[in-house]
Amino acid sequence: MDIGFIGLGIMGAPMALHLVNAGHQLFVNTRSELSPEVAASPAIRCKDAAEVARRAAVVFVMVPDTPDVESVLFGEGGVAQSLNGNDAGARKIIVDMSSISPTATKAFAQRINALGADYIDAPVSGGEVGAKAASLTIMCGGDAAVFERIRPLLELMGKNITLVGGNGDGQTTKVANQIIVALNIAAVGEALLFAAKAGADPAKVRDALMGGFASSRILEVHGERMIKRTFAPGFRIRLHQKDLGLALQGARELGVSLPQTAGVAQLMQACAANGLDDLDHSALVRALELLADHEISAAA
Amino acid sequence: MDIGFIGLGIMGAPMALHLVNAGHQLFVNTRSELSPEVAASPAIRCKDAAEVARRAAVVFVMVPDTPDVESVLFGEGGVAQSLNGNDAGARKIIVDMSSISPTATKAFAQRINALGADYIDAPVSGGEVGAKAASLTIMCGGDAAVFERIRPLLELMGKNITLVGGNGDGQTTKVANQIIVALNIAAVGEALLFAAKAGADPAKVRDALMGGFASSRILEVHGERMIKRTFAPGFRIRLHQKDLGLALQGARELGVSLPQTAGVAQLMQACAANGLDDLDHSALVRALELLADHEISAAA
Repeated sequence: MDIGFIGLGIMGAPMALHLVNAGHQLFVNTRSELSPEVAASPAIRCKDAAEVARRAAVVFVMVPDTPDVESVLFGEGGVAQSLNGNDAGARKIIVDMSSISPTATKAFAQRINALGADYIDAPVSGGEVGAKAASLTIMCGGDAAVFERIRPLLELMGKNITLVGGNGDGQTTKVANQIIVALNIAAVGEALLFAAKAGADPAKVRDALMGGFASSRILEVHGERMIKRTFAPGFRIRLHQKDLGLALQGARELGVSLPQTAGVAQLMQACAANGLDDLDHSALVRALELLADHEISAAA
Repeated sequence: MDIGFIGLGIMGAPMALHLVNAGHQLFVNTRSELSPEVAASPAIRCKDAAEVARRAAVVFVMVPDTPDVESVLFGEGGVAQSLNGNDAGARKIIVDMSSISPTATKAFAQRINALGADYIDAPVSGGEVGAKAASLTIMCGGDAAVFERIRPLLELMGKNITLVGGNGDGQTTKVANQIIVALNIAAVGEALLFAAKAGADPAKVRDALMGGFASSRILEVHGERMIKRTFAPGFRIRLHQKDLGLALQGARELGVSLPQTAGVAQLMQACAANGLDDLDHSALVRALELLADHEISAAA
């Protein structure tokens, strides 16, 4: 199939390669240098997003933030230029895999639909490791029939693929995921720091809690990182800050109050203020440790 | 074995019955009426905690809060009166299964040790259901040899039994557990309310998140309660408020700052202000819903 891929960064490049390796003809456009693997592949580099959309039947977008998606879709040389008047041919499908605003996504989808094309929002979690291993979790929003048509392509990039609902619901699910992950990291951080300062061995406390109601993937994975002080990313605090920004901006637009999310966002800001925002998000505990002048590991 | 049990409330009564049913002779004392099952059992009612401690080799305590434990141990007619000068006989063991202050526990243990007896702190989680089913999680602090001597008795009341460290570490682990559970409930509440207000089906969002980094026992159990609006306790907000009080009081004593725990404690206070504190702690989401004038279920 003729497939477009716009945005070949740390995430996009390995995801695009999985499509190439499955035998698809790729048309790509990216602001960054092409990675050696993509440059050596049969993927064809296009001068802009409009050319990608003209030559491909399905166009994947994987860029950093909401304004980047807007620019790729509706800016100068954007995807929309190749959709206008496309009603004579087969309907193209735009699949946005970036993590962006759910409300902006609904508007983008309506504008794309009005140009005679289909839209699926399909943000991912799993990071660079998941992108390379084709094991990403993919949370989708859009029409069920359109989703079924692109599902075989998504399965080349991820494992746990869900259609949650209509357009925007994929992005909403990603935001919900990032809220829970951030707040669960703070929960484990406060609990283990309390335990360490009280003189208990945080590793033994974590073990004792693993079977009960406190158990979570975050206690398992990030709790261990906090105790072993392995803060190399992983998922950088800086990127999680962006996602909590989407949550708080969305909350303002929707009329929801997220007091705990706002609190964790401020703790991440404290990490940034101390130059820690390129560490893994489990290093959120460092902000709590700074406040307490005590490190979890020091008690063990 | 001659076993004492002080505090036969909602938790203590079924726990004591497991010991009776295993063939042990119980000596009991409680402020409440004896439950019909305990009254009909061979358990012998004592006039005060001192009599219990005089007649029993191991004394379990299961009362509401730190001052209650202090009163049972060191008050008028308390356990300590029967320990003084006890050094001639076998060392008695005091096992406090209440959920109380870790720092007070360390002081209580030292005072009991000074009277020639041993002390184990062994708070539980699992609630009334776990007490009746003998499936409690029991988090212990104290001497390892003493712990091994009472382990067969603990196994009559619980399943997941851990010696975390020295005296106080059991209570510290319980506090850590209650911090994580409370903060994970808030995490799921904010995420599902955001999703519902954004127009997504919170049940589908929960399903999509269950396999990834957001997965937790709380997302599984309390997330479902929020969506299905099943807020009958379970574990009452009022009791969780007490446990967060222990966390925040402990934090002040130890010199740790727990900003997220403090936030959740205020959300629970908002539930109490609205007469919701006898509901299950999953009803914490009601405080967020009041702020947003929107209920999770309304969007489904």
